[in-house]
Amino acid sequence: MTKLTEGNAILLLCGTILTLDHDNTIIENGAVAVVDDTIAEIGPEERLREKYPGAERLTAEKGLVMPGLINVHTHAAMSCLRGIADDLPLMTWLQEYIFPVETSLTGEIVYQATRLSALEMIRSGTTTFCDMYLFAKDVARATAESGMRAWLGEGMFDFPSPNYGRPDAGIVYVDELFELYRDHSLINITTDPHSTYTCSPELLEQIKKQAERNQALFVIHLSETADEVENIRKQYGNSPVNHLESLGLLDSQVVAAHCVVLTEKEINLLARRNVKVAHCPESNMKLASGVAPIPALLAAGITVGLGTDGCASNNDVDMFGEMDTAAKLQKVHLLDPTVMNAAQTLDLATMGGARLLGADKIIGSLEPGKKADMIVLEFNQPHLTPLYNIPSHLVYGARGADVVHSVINGRIVMRNRDIVTLDEEAIMSGMNRIAGGIRRRNVV
Amino acid sequence: MTKLTEGNAILLLCGTILTLDHDNTIIENGAVAVVDDTIAEIGPEERLREKYPGAERLTAEKGLVMPGLINVHTHAAMSCLRGIADDLPLMTWLQEYIFPVETSLTGEIVYQATRLSALEMIRSGTTTFCDMYLFAKDVARATAESGMRAWLGEGMFDFPSPNYGRPDAGIVYVDELFELYRDHSLINITTDPHSTYTCSPELLEQIKKQAERNQALFVIHLSETADEVENIRKQYGNSPVNHLESLGLLDSQVVAAHCVVLTEKEINLLARRNVKVAHCPESNMKLASGVAPIPALLAAGITVGLGTDGCASNNDVDMFGEMDTAAKLQKVHLLDPTVMNAAQTLDLATMGGARLLGADKIIGSLEPGKKADMIVLEFNQPHLTPLYNIPSHLVYGARGADVVHSVINGRIVMRNRDIVTLDEEAIMSGMNRIAGGIRRRNVV
Repeated sequence: MTKLTEGNAILLLCGTILTLDHDNTIIENGAVAVVDDTIAEIGPEERLREKYPGAERLTAEKGLVMPGLINVHTHAAMSCLRGIADDLPLMTWLQEYIFPVETSLTGEIVYQATRLSALEMIRSGTTTFCDMYLFAKDVARATAESGMRAWLGEGMFDFPSPNYGRPDAGIVYVDELFELYRDHSLINITTDPHSTYTCSPELLEQIKKQAERNQALFVIHLSETADEVENIRKQYGNSPVNHLESLGLLDSQVVAAHCVVLTEKEINLLARRNVKVAHCPESNMKLASGVAPIPALLAAGITVGLGTDGCASNNDVDMFGEMDTAAKLQKVHLLDPTVMNAAQTLDLATMGGARLLGADKIIGSLEPGKKADMIVLEFNQPHLTPLYNIPSHLVYGARGADVVHSVINGRIVMRNRDIVTLDEEAIMSGMNRIAGGIRRRNVV
Repeated sequence: MTKLTEGNAILLLCGTILTLDHDNTIIENGAVAVVDDTIAEIGPEERLREKYPGAERLTAEKGLVMPGLINVHTHAAMSCLRGIADDLPLMTWLQEYIFPVETSLTGEIVYQATRLSALEMIRSGTTTFCDMYLFAKDVARATAESGMRAWLGEGMFDFPSPNYGRPDAGIVYVDELFELYRDHSLINITTDPHSTYTCSPELLEQIKKQAERNQALFVIHLSETADEVENIRKQYGNSPVNHLESLGLLDSQVVAAHCVVLTEKEINLLARRNVKVAHCPESNMKLASGVAPIPALLAAGITVGLGTDGCASNNDVDMFGEMDTAAKLQKVHLLDPTVMNAAQTLDLATMGGARLLGADKIIGSLEPGKKADMIVLEFNQPHLTPLYNIPSHLVYGARGADVVHSVINGRIVMRNRDIVTLDEEAIMSGMNRIAGGIRRRNVV
């Protein structure tokens, strides 16, 4: 735990404290004391105010202080394609709209679009995200500027990338990424094979070695659609999950995004191998991929986190809306209102995400010694009145716009809905110019 | 059309005008001129500002002016039960939580809770709603105060009501309601048989006569769950739809809420009888009722509107979130990303709702001569940047909190997110007191 020494900036976040710790402690009229990047102490506001008289206080009307949300799967820079094409068959969408734009992407566009997503994520209560995209150095640069915590990597595949060209060069690029961010306090590098349908077995194995060399996560889209499963089965005689298993690639470092189409056997295999699953319900709905068997995955003991996926298939990165949908989707899919209750859904977006990232010792709940990643919501609003149950309100009632302050790694990144780390107006007008260019390249 | 006479208060709503008229006209740098309660003119802002130099202007950064949303099925006063019980089996939820509270409801609680919902509805862009609940005189009183437009009625059933007692007295109560609001500019009374499982054939017929006497809508919960269909079949030897048909009750005045469980034959019957359907996807998801066959209903030519249902089963009344869910749910349910596109979904929440209420001549789109019910959204926000397609943003990106102004029947009800018609703080603290009472009556 950080030692309190004179001169340290101290922050007190005051209100009802939803710790989401093991005992699910809730403290009314409480405070969280932050020293440097760390939660020093949690207790009654009165006592902590006496103890830290000079501390800056962050409060809100009927304020709720809780852990920042963790978005375990997104492609932040796809915000530049938000709404460019919707409601189309998957292959038309990808081949006629998304891929043509992506082949002409530049590092600058990715940098700008990642900053745009960071604005939206901070505004809607996310403090940590896991990103897979192109030009990851630019993603990292934008993220570092935003003050957000992230796990991020460069998407790898067999065909030429507009960023690194051939896959070999991609491996070198990712090595450089690891080097650049080895000691960064907020940015963690991942290895990101795009999928089994875009990566040869050789490339997957090469990337796995890189993951092992760097003790990094191996993030991959897996079993997202029935078509994918069918195609991989035709090509390799195996489902995507079993294909990875046959290559010896399934282990506790694997983060599998989507996992919509799974057999019971595959669920048990993923559980045995301690593979983590990133669940993206809104994207799976919008692209008509299907419904991931989350209650079954949880029952099998698999760690599941919640993600928004990219803005082109959602079209937002609001984790509050995603929780609401995640809970309701399972209920209607399984015709059982008791599955995915509010507390369980909230866990996916907090401790579940932290466990998925291997970071549950440092984030996901409010506990002394953990990094100070937290948000304050204003509950004194009509849509959050009256209050019977906090998790219910967070999952079924609250929205991103209810977040008024955000602190990441002890630093205030948003105060009273003003983002401190990024110039919001400049980023939005920059993105409007970029969108003009994308539009003119006649993909819309 | 209202005549422009000197002394009339004139209002100009300026920005990009999304009229949702027959030609789907969009006017950039446009304005809507409102004289009294009516849209007088729509055109370029410059010209209208010259023509109406003294007019008050409502604008927003990159403001979008559009028709107010129409929530075709809710129980506004259930906001007092928001989050009191979730994630429970339907019968446990109803019998152990909702019904016990409802039997001890009072007109005062309903009045307060309806005002609370009105706050939330106005804040999230709804200008018209259709309500079924108890103590409808109090619902009407609260609604009149809020300045919202509404169709509302008293829920009728065979067992005693905490409001009117026996059904006969209910009929008298509703007669009084019709009398009270016959000439009201914003409030329209409906007849509201709760459902086929709570109303005897005799009561249904009695209510139908009352509807006909008053040329009013006949609003009923219909085919919400498989259990309901099964039970009615056992009791009457017919499905709920066919039961109503056999009683001769299906016609163009019927608004059927939910319609989750329908056969193809029933869909064709509803189409032939010109029955209207109120679709409540989030409630159907949360209560695990199932997925209404909306694309099939629309293909059969049935008028469909969108509703949130009550706050106890949603738990909000935000129609922007409801649109998002409505579109995505059909895609994943039918495994087809092309169904329920953004424009079609937006139509359900605007003109579809207006047609359902028999009010498409007066609301649902921005056209000269229609009533001035409209909202202004601020699009200059990260989650709505960049802008390629307006309906896409409204369905998949925008949220209630993006609405900055609301005008209903020519009256400003919210300006810069300040509600003009109701005292927000007083209503919230009143509701917190009421919730304390509900909690103590030990239903939670």
